[in-house]
Amino acid sequence: MFRKKILPLAVVSTIALGSLLGSVTETDAKEKKGHDHEKVKNIIFMIGDGMGVSYTSAYRYLKDDPNTKFVEQTEFDKYLVGQQMTYPEDPAENITDSASAATAMAAGIKTYNAAIAVDNDGSEVKTVLEAAKAAGKATGLVATSEITHATPASFGAHDEHRKNMNAIANDYYDELINGEHKVDVLLGGGTDLFIREDRNLVEEFKKDGYSYVTNRNELLKDQNEQVLGLFAPRGLPKMIDRTEDIPSLEEMTKSAIKRLSKDKDGFFLMVEGSQIDWAGHDNDIVSAMSEMEDFEKAFKAAIEFAKKDKHTLVIATADHSTGGYSIGADGIYNWFGAPIKAAKRTPDFMAQEIANGADVEEMLKKYIDLELTAEEIQSVKSAAEQGKADKDKGVKRVDDAIEHIFDKRSHTGWTTSGHTGEDVPVYAYGPRSERFVGQIENTDHAKIIFDIFRKGKQKIVIEDK
Amino acid sequence: MFRKKILPLAVVSTIALGSLLGSVTETDAKEKKGHDHEKVKNIIFMIGDGMGVSYTSAYRYLKDDPNTKFVEQTEFDKYLVGQQMTYPEDPAENITDSASAATAMAAGIKTYNAAIAVDNDGSEVKTVLEAAKAAGKATGLVATSEITHATPASFGAHDEHRKNMNAIANDYYDELINGEHKVDVLLGGGTDLFIREDRNLVEEFKKDGYSYVTNRNELLKDQNEQVLGLFAPRGLPKMIDRTEDIPSLEEMTKSAIKRLSKDKDGFFLMVEGSQIDWAGHDNDIVSAMSEMEDFEKAFKAAIEFAKKDKHTLVIATADHSTGGYSIGADGIYNWFGAPIKAAKRTPDFMAQEIANGADVEEMLKKYIDLELTAEEIQSVKSAAEQGKADKDKGVKRVDDAIEHIFDKRSHTGWTTSGHTGEDVPVYAYGPRSERFVGQIENTDHAKIIFDIFRKGKQKIVIEDK
Repeated sequence: MFRKKILPLAVVSTIALGSLLGSVTETDAKEKKGHDHEKVKNIIFMIGDGMGVSYTSAYRYLKDDPNTKFVEQTEFDKYLVGQQMTYPEDPAENITDSASAATAMAAGIKTYNAAIAVDNDGSEVKTVLEAAKAAGKATGLVATSEITHATPASFGAHDEHRKNMNAIANDYYDELINGEHKVDVLLGGGTDLFIREDRNLVEEFKKDGYSYVTNRNELLKDQNEQVLGLFAPRGLPKMIDRTEDIPSLEEMTKSAIKRLSKDKDGFFLMVEGSQIDWAGHDNDIVSAMSEMEDFEKAFKAAIEFAKKDKHTLVIATADHSTGGYSIGADGIYNWFGAPIKAAKRTPDFMAQEIANGADVEEMLKKYIDLELTAEEIQSVKSAAEQGKADKDKGVKRVDDAIEHIFDKRSHTGWTTSGHTGEDVPVYAYGPRSERFVGQIENTDHAKIIFDIFRKGKQKIVIEDK
Repeated sequence: MFRKKILPLAVVSTIALGSLLGSVTETDAKEKKGHDHEKVKNIIFMIGDGMGVSYTSAYRYLKDDPNTKFVEQTEFDKYLVGQQMTYPEDPAENITDSASAATAMAAGIKTYNAAIAVDNDGSEVKTVLEAAKAAGKATGLVATSEITHATPASFGAHDEHRKNMNAIANDYYDELINGEHKVDVLLGGGTDLFIREDRNLVEEFKKDGYSYVTNRNELLKDQNEQVLGLFAPRGLPKMIDRTEDIPSLEEMTKSAIKRLSKDKDGFFLMVEGSQIDWAGHDNDIVSAMSEMEDFEKAFKAAIEFAKKDKHTLVIATADHSTGGYSIGADGIYNWFGAPIKAAKRTPDFMAQEIANGADVEEMLKKYIDLELTAEEIQSVKSAAEQGKADKDKGVKRVDDAIEHIFDKRSHTGWTTSGHTGEDVPVYAYGPRSERFVGQIENTDHAKIIFDIFRKGKQKIVIEDK
């Protein structure tokens, strides 16, 4: 369908890091103040996919302790340094997708929507993860989506289209830097992309010394520095739907840090809270807040490591916002977190149970800790009835009906099933965090990180195995 | 209707500024770095009413020069320092109105919606404008709404409800600080509130030495340090609807600065871009962008003064966002500024002309520089036809129909006719600007400003004339 790798990898190796650094200004001036005595050894780059300002604000209000005078700050709030602009450089669209935005943050270039670390000519572009590996550091990718999904892929692979997830999985194995695999720790979903009819990448990774883990216990028990962990055929279930078997984003992040921090040269780790965005596309406020919590806990774990380590820079941001989500709707000056917190499972989960034959009223009462009105229950029953003919549409109809209950009770508004173009928050902690202050471009992240890495200028050789 | 002033002013004078300062921490530590050598003499506090992140982002994209690779920063972008939380302390609502938010920024307290510098007990609370006047500084209020509207009122008056605009106008005249009028420069709309059957405040101000100006030429010609300028019976027309007679927000701001800066003790000036919010309530993207431009130009004028002066702190922020406005809607990954820039007048203006008997098609062609489709023209004709019976509803119907054209062509989304609860951006420049960095409370503005004023601790006596 899509052409794969327009330029051979040999060409890639000639891309000089230097050219990217030219546009970083005021470096020396800025570095004279702040944490200058502290060297950056490790970088943890965290992306809340779709996590616009409405999400970070709503999550704070959701978690508020009503017994205190002021609303408590979230973990993110403590480290806000500014905002970033998210627009892509796409011939047809001016609101970004996750691939273009991740490429901007990973490689420092604006490109078209769907691009996985390739520019508008299709040329592969060097990523900060590759630069870290070339500098002898350990590297990791952690996500709650498929680990081959647009955001992690843009740090560890190259492809002209995000949909080529098999080819992206191949890249993780095939593309070597100085003779080594590019990514030491890969944790997320996507068994289907690694164990395929044409190829079994799990076996290939194992043969090269990687551990392979598929559930929470295995992940926590294994101590290997190189690991492939795949916990679902595709994306992981959302936090509030997970069974004991599936690790949280916090657990994956901690496990990644534990392994990577054994490298005396330091590490680069990208962590994505992938499904805040998926919840936004679905206009599902319950799932959005579930995934915000999952991501916040992972962020807190990263910050705690950085505080102890003192040589770790942590950045957290979003690639864009999703859904046109608003705190408040329909002229009402209230937004309520309580109805959202009353959900014990996502609307998707409940809708699937109903599609599988469970009784509507029973399901709603089991998983929603609210006194639902007869009208609310009937709205879901009607949706289930209408959707019975077509199983797929039926699930969606029931899902929408359940979401509608939460929207109405919380006064949540939505304008789109897609992304929106407003600026998103940037959080930073640790040495050099002052360089992310103010209004920045999404491309600035990579430019600053390349600049930090420049100190240990290595010759980078990328070759196919 | 609403009780006016629950506590007599005598009580107010006993409110110690000190109690507000207790919660400002790290002052000394923070002041040791940054612009410490520069004293703050003047403060210009600017509020874009309703100017959430979607507005500041959209305005940047609207103004973008398509011939350059990167999108140009707005004047605001250059000075972004963080975001603020906007929630009120209201027994019934958790999304703020402009009165509660302005009281938070003016007086450093959370209070109920509609409160004009009074707390939840109805007690009047000291404002930063009052503290400035007590410190011997000149003071000013500039707005494009009535100058008695919620935002300016919360800096220069006290009332238990924002709707009492006559009483608020009285306060501007009657409430004295150390025997002097509280506000030296009052520029905005609201002739109806000052020249009334029961009282003519214009004559009273003139008797006390104030100039009175009612149009652009008079404003620019007059040099008096004290001035009352009222340029419309209520709010001013929006920027793109204004005649030559009516000054821009930039002109009012420059005129205010010119007068106030004659005071050797310095000044405090509050400037509001009042109608970004009004446009948001109306879900009118054309008017929103008109008012953003008006406010940006005023901000630029303030920054230019501050850069020359070197002892002026400029802060710009919003009180909340409005309308649930999103850049992008209906699943489309584009937002277009061109259709919005094609409007030469606001939809309100065009709708009013049509209601006054103008031909629909002629009006649309005269004021919208687009090739409108037959369907678009028909939609406005139908609205005009349907609304003919009831003149008020007719204008609203036509207005909505015209707005709909711009929404569809630009891919603009809305979720509410009210406010929304997400955090809003904070911009700061000048000495002590570093104190506004990060994630702050709306109340922090007043707390920091009080703290800056503390250095010249004056005894404050407020009395009725």
